[in-house]
Amino acid sequence: MYKITKEAIEQAHARIQPYIHRTPVLTNQSINEIAGTELFFKCENLQKIGAFKIRGGMNAALSLTPEKLKNGIATHSSGNHAQAIAYAAKVLGTKAYIVMPSTSPSVKVNAVKGYGAEITFCEPNQAAREAAVQKIIDETGAEFIHPYDDFRVITGQATCVKELLEEVPDLRAVVAPVGGGGLLSGTCLGAHYINPAIEVYAGEPEGAADAILSFKSGKVEKAPYVKTIADGLMTTLSEQTLSIIREHLKDIFLVSDEEIKAALKLVYERMKIVVEPSCVVPLAAVLKNKELFAGKKTGIILSGGNVDLTRFSEWFQ
Amino acid sequence: MYKITKEAIEQAHARIQPYIHRTPVLTNQSINEIAGTELFFKCENLQKIGAFKIRGGMNAALSLTPEKLKNGIATHSSGNHAQAIAYAAKVLGTKAYIVMPSTSPSVKVNAVKGYGAEITFCEPNQAAREAAVQKIIDETGAEFIHPYDDFRVITGQATCVKELLEEVPDLRAVVAPVGGGGLLSGTCLGAHYINPAIEVYAGEPEGAADAILSFKSGKVEKAPYVKTIADGLMTTLSEQTLSIIREHLKDIFLVSDEEIKAALKLVYERMKIVVEPSCVVPLAAVLKNKELFAGKKTGIILSGGNVDLTRFSEWFQ
Repeated sequence: MYKITKEAIEQAHARIQPYIHRTPVLTNQSINEIAGTELFFKCENLQKIGAFKIRGGMNAALSLTPEKLKNGIATHSSGNHAQAIAYAAKVLGTKAYIVMPSTSPSVKVNAVKGYGAEITFCEPNQAAREAAVQKIIDETGAEFIHPYDDFRVITGQATCVKELLEEVPDLRAVVAPVGGGGLLSGTCLGAHYINPAIEVYAGEPEGAADAILSFKSGKVEKAPYVKTIADGLMTTLSEQTLSIIREHLKDIFLVSDEEIKAALKLVYERMKIVVEPSCVVPLAAVLKNKELFAGKKTGIILSGGNVDLTRFSEWFQ
Repeated sequence: MYKITKEAIEQAHARIQPYIHRTPVLTNQSINEIAGTELFFKCENLQKIGAFKIRGGMNAALSLTPEKLKNGIATHSSGNHAQAIAYAAKVLGTKAYIVMPSTSPSVKVNAVKGYGAEITFCEPNQAAREAAVQKIIDETGAEFIHPYDDFRVITGQATCVKELLEEVPDLRAVVAPVGGGGLLSGTCLGAHYINPAIEVYAGEPEGAADAILSFKSGKVEKAPYVKTIADGLMTTLSEQTLSIIREHLKDIFLVSDEEIKAALKLVYERMKIVVEPSCVVPLAAVLKNKELFAGKKTGIILSGGNVDLTRFSEWFQ
């Protein structure tokens, strides 16, 4: 069985490096003044495919034997993981089979199509997604790569905090967003193996508040309701991601959509970069908990920048 | 009299370096594929104050004697030059007097106020601007720093292409936007002194097509009409900027607002950075004249990223 160790993360990093960008770490004086601390933004919005997901997807694909890889790779996702799998298949010369809900925005469908993936549409529910991807696997022998409930994927996501800490070794805290927990559990493990003293925190939307409940109860819980502009963070944790998070995460902070919008405006206006609403949830969490982060050099993982530009009018009013 | 020489540009660069960012040069594979050439984007949207204007403003302010500087610096501008002068005064510990048209967007007024400048509002026409700034100079002894018709400013703007060519020495062409011609004439001189073989081009909006007329006739001409989303490029050349441009510029290309919007969408979607419409006019010009740039490594100066986020809904539909 695949175990996530310091060596596994280092091997994953060496494996995926030729295919990914080493994304820049940006700082911004006026945001530091507002936050009352020094923030270091790891810009995965500037990553290949516009999001960190390429790290996990690429590591999983590169972990397959050449024979297995020949049959292709498959997943169900409406978001950045779909693009990651499609891109990985393209550069590795194999097929990608992507199951997407019929309600997926056309900008995401087109991006996946652009990488040459074969798309199968399904009803927008979990059972339909899983059935559709199972059918494909049975027919093609393709390897299923789950968006987050997969140790190869989590190990790949851990390479992001590894790069951040190589660039800014004296960080005392790191904050990541939490959806299914792939990035967050990878960040927990990556930080832990490099420097166990680093405090890892998560930001979660109030309108998708499952992880905070699961973190407290120790069981995978559902969100009381799901409604947020942070549409990349609507999924629930898995047993595996929860168990890593329970062991290594310091705390989870909830933020409202209004707080997310305010952080989004700050990043667009001050940093001049395009990010997804999901991406600024950690910044919103820091701005809401200033006393905790005061004087503590803090890394923030900006997870992605794939946005539908026509939605700007909802976000910036 | 201040002359623009290779040494003057080098001195300006050394002088302003402690106060500015060395902005990154970004590349983007999918835009290269669309353009059919290799493009190198010098990201002045990530510059201090969000635009290249800090280079010229800071160079002019730092060229003053300490006695003269004590009286403050003054300008009329509704745009990024106002922020540059305000910021320069702040970091140099003197006063900034900024004359702004009463119609200036509040986001720009607030940015200038944020740097502690004293703002005087005037009627939105050239005569009112000049009268208001003259009155301030008479009263305070402040030094007037014109947005572009000033050799100290032009020399400062020339440092941008200097950095770009230090990073990518084998560029064969550079494209800049043209408004009053400060950035463009600085780019012409900077490129010429480093490598006279580099072809410098300009992009200009169809709805502010004065520079192309002046470039052809040799006299400062007015645009037939002024209406464009590239609101940073509405000014006309001066005798001085025209004379430099006539000597060193290869050509000017006009682009429509639709072409500017298409280039803007590309930069937001693919590069994930926030830029002003004025800023993508050179990219729009390259995409409209692909055969000329094919196979020619080309630098593009992205001039600024100060946008009113509420205008996104007009740009991205």
